[in-house]
Amino acid sequence: MEGKENILRITPKSSIEVENEEADENGQNDPIHVLNDFHKFLSIRANYHLGYPFHIKYEDSDTMAPLLQFHLNNLGDPFVDRNYGLNSKQFEVAVLDWFAELWDIPKEDYWGYITNGGTEGNLHGILIGLVSKRELHPEGVLYASQESHYSISKAARMYRIKLETVNALVTGEMDCQDLRNKLLLNRGKPAIINVNIGTTFKGGVDDIDLIIKILEECEFSEDQFYIHCDAALSGLIIPFLNDVPNKVSFKKPIGSVCVSGHKFLGCPIPCGVQITRKKHINVLSNNIDYIASKDLTISGSRNGHTPVFMWYSLKTKGHKQLETDVHECLKRACFLKDQLKEARISCMLNEFSNTVVFEKPLDDEFVLKWQLSCKGDLAHVIVMPTVTTENLKMFIDELKQSRLSWFQKGSFYPSCVEEEIGEENCDCDAHF
Amino acid sequence: MEGKENILRITPKSSIEVENEEADENGQNDPIHVLNDFHKFLSIRANYHLGYPFHIKYEDSDTMAPLLQFHLNNLGDPFVDRNYGLNSKQFEVAVLDWFAELWDIPKEDYWGYITNGGTEGNLHGILIGLVSKRELHPEGVLYASQESHYSISKAARMYRIKLETVNALVTGEMDCQDLRNKLLLNRGKPAIINVNIGTTFKGGVDDIDLIIKILEECEFSEDQFYIHCDAALSGLIIPFLNDVPNKVSFKKPIGSVCVSGHKFLGCPIPCGVQITRKKHINVLSNNIDYIASKDLTISGSRNGHTPVFMWYSLKTKGHKQLETDVHECLKRACFLKDQLKEARISCMLNEFSNTVVFEKPLDDEFVLKWQLSCKGDLAHVIVMPTVTTENLKMFIDELKQSRLSWFQKGSFYPSCVEEEIGEENCDCDAHF
Repeated sequence: MEGKENILRITPKSSIEVENEEADENGQNDPIHVLNDFHKFLSIRANYHLGYPFHIKYEDSDTMAPLLQFHLNNLGDPFVDRNYGLNSKQFEVAVLDWFAELWDIPKEDYWGYITNGGTEGNLHGILIGLVSKRELHPEGVLYASQESHYSISKAARMYRIKLETVNALVTGEMDCQDLRNKLLLNRGKPAIINVNIGTTFKGGVDDIDLIIKILEECEFSEDQFYIHCDAALSGLIIPFLNDVPNKVSFKKPIGSVCVSGHKFLGCPIPCGVQITRKKHINVLSNNIDYIASKDLTISGSRNGHTPVFMWYSLKTKGHKQLETDVHECLKRACFLKDQLKEARISCMLNEFSNTVVFEKPLDDEFVLKWQLSCKGDLAHVIVMPTVTTENLKMFIDELKQSRLSWFQKGSFYPSCVEEEIGEENCDCDAHF
Repeated sequence: MEGKENILRITPKSSIEVENEEADENGQNDPIHVLNDFHKFLSIRANYHLGYPFHIKYEDSDTMAPLLQFHLNNLGDPFVDRNYGLNSKQFEVAVLDWFAELWDIPKEDYWGYITNGGTEGNLHGILIGLVSKRELHPEGVLYASQESHYSISKAARMYRIKLETVNALVTGEMDCQDLRNKLLLNRGKPAIINVNIGTTFKGGVDDIDLIIKILEECEFSEDQFYIHCDAALSGLIIPFLNDVPNKVSFKKPIGSVCVSGHKFLGCPIPCGVQITRKKHINVLSNNIDYIASKDLTISGSRNGHTPVFMWYSLKTKGHKQLETDVHECLKRACFLKDQLKEARISCMLNEFSNTVVFEKPLDDEFVLKWQLSCKGDLAHVIVMPTVTTENLKMFIDELKQSRLSWFQKGSFYPSCVEEEIGEENCDCDAHF
C-alpha cells in the first residue's frame, strides 16, 4: 500500500507556499513543476476512489478547455439576459428546461437556476419554503429525517427556524409515523419538509406520496406546507428505472427539487440544478438596478462554465446513455454487495440505489487509501459511472486480505450493526 | 454597430435545446458546432466589456486545462485534509496564508476558505458576526451603507435580522455621522457592521478607522461589535498603493475580510477569499461525521479548481506584477476621466479607485454593446487589467459620436447629476 504521506501530500509544503524564499536547486518550487506533480498525484488517486458520489474523471475536458479563456458569469436571474455579455444563460436555460420536463412542470410555470452544488440548492429550497409561507405565519417549522444531508441543519441554523428531526428507518428512509407525531405537535405552523431522494449515507428514498397523505390526514392544507426534494444523487438515477413508486413530479404538491450536476451527470466542478414553481419565487424577488436583473439566487455572481458542461453532457449522453449508466452502476453495486456477503461482511444495498453500506474497515489508512466515507461503525461505497468492476475487484481482494490481519489476533471481532442496517444484513457472530 | 440580436444571442435557440427534434441539414445543431459558435461570440464580446469588475480574459487557460480532467472538491474545512483525496486544499491554504499575511494576521490566529464569490463571503462574514455575538444578545443589528452590495440586504433577509441602512456621501463612502445616530438608536444590541472597501458602483472606501472611533465613542465595547470588510474589488488594489489611510488590517478590531478572486486577480470562475479570526468560527463549528471534517463553510462541497487558479496567479504575478497592474489601471482610469471631462461629460473618479462614474448613455443598445452597468442617471466603467487604452479610446470616440445624435434634437439635455456625484463633477448646463 502507498504510504500515508503519499496519499495525503502531493508535494513538499514549502514548494506550494506563494512567497517561497527557499533555494530551488532542482526546480521543485517552479509552479509548473508543482502543477505537474499535482496532476500525476490526481491521476493515481482517481483509481482509488470509492466513497463519494462524485464523477471523478471528466471525459470532455479537451472540448471544454477553450472556454477557460474567458470569465463567464451568469449573474442574477438566468431568464433575464442583460448587460453583462460573457454569460452562458442560453445554455443554462436549456439545461433547466430539460429538468423541468423530467419533473413534469411546464416551461411557463417553473423558475430555476444552476447552483454551486447541493448545499446551495437545499438552502435555496428551504428559503423559498419559508418566505412563501411567512405571510401565513412568521414561524415555519422545518421537518427533516435524521439521515438528511448536513446542509439541512445548517439551513435551520442560518434561518433561525425550528428543526424537527424525524426518525429514520433502517433503510435510511424517513419514518412517516414519527413525522405524523411531530406534525401534530406543531399544528397551525407552516410545515417545510425536506424529502430525501437518496439519502447521503444509505441511499434511502423517502416516500413522497405517503408524506403528502400524512400531511392531508394531519389537516395541513396545501398552503400550509412546502415540500423541498433533495435529489442530489438519486435525482438522476430514479427517473431511468422502471417500477419505482413515488417518483418526483410537480404534478404532486411539491415546491422545489434540486439535483447535483457533479454527481451522476459528471461535471468536474460542484454544481446543481434547482427548480421551483414561479409563483413561489416571486415573493423573493427584489429589483436590483445594479445588475439590471432581479436577483432571486443565493450566489449572485454565478459560475458560467458549469451550465455549459452540464449542457454538453446532457446533449451528448441523452436519456439513452444516462439510462445505460444507471443500469450499469446498479448492476456493479449488486456485484459488490454479493461479493461482500460471500465474504461474510455485513452490508446493505437499498433497492434503486448504487450505495453499498458495509462494516467500517478497522484501519484508517485503508479507509484513506480507498477514500471511503464513514459514519459510526459503517462505511459506504458509491458505485458511480467512473467506478469499474476492476476497481471493485481490487478493493474486495484487499479488504478481505486486510480483514484477516485485523481480526486474526482474536481480540477484535466485526461489530454488530443490526441496529444500523437490520438483522438480515448483519453478519456479526451473533447474527450469522 | 452590431445589431442587438447579435449582441444578445449567440445561436438559434433551437440549436441549444437539449432534446432537439428539428432537422439539422447544415449541422448547426451539432453540439461542437454550437460550442464553436459560442467561443467565437465570446471572443468578440470580450473586446467590448467595460462595466463589470471582472477579469474577462484568462491568460493561464492552457496551463490549467489538464486539471479539468478531474472532479476536484475541497469539501469542508480547508485545514482538515481527510478522506476525499481529489482536492486542492494544499493550494487553498497557501492562498489563504498569503492573504492572512497581507492583512496582518498570524497563521495560528486565522481561519478562512475560498468561497464561490463575494456574496458567499458577505453571507459568511455576517453570519459569523451574528453567531459570535448571539450569546451576548439574540438580536444583533446589521449596519451597512446604502451603497453596499445587494448581498448585504440579502443576508439581512435570510438571517431575519434588522438592517439599519446608513446614508452615504457623494463619493459612495459611508456617512459616519449618520452611522453614529443609528448606533445610538440601538444601544445595547450587538452591532454587525459591513465596511465597504470599494463600493460596487462608485468605488468609494469606507473610513474604517473613523468607524471604529465612533463605535468607541458610542460606548460599544469590542465584544459588542463585529466588523466585516467587503473588499471584493479594492481588496487587491489598495494594499499596493502608497499613502492610503485606513488600510484593512487585523491589527485593528475587525472580524472578517473578503475579496473576490475573479476580479483583480483574474480567475475565470467566480470565487473569493474569506479570512476571519479563529476564535470567531469556533462557535459555528459542528462536527460532521460524514465528511470527517468540521463544516464551517457555507457551501459544503467546494470548487477545487479555483484555489489552484488563484494560487498560480499569485505565484506567477507576485506582489510586483499586481502592483504594476494596479498602477496601470489607475492611470488608465485617470485617462478616461480626463477624456470625459474634456468632452464635457459629467463624471467622477474617486482617489485610489479604478471606477469611473459618468452620465448614463441614453441609448440602451450602446449600454448593452459596451456591457456597462447603470444605476439611475449614472453608468460606470471599471478599468480592469484586461481593459486596454485602445478599448477606452474606441469607447470614448463612439460615446462622443453617439451623444451628438442623442442630444442633437434639442429636446434632450444631459441630466443634472449634482446630487449623485457632486457639483464639481456635474457638467450639465446649470453646472458647467
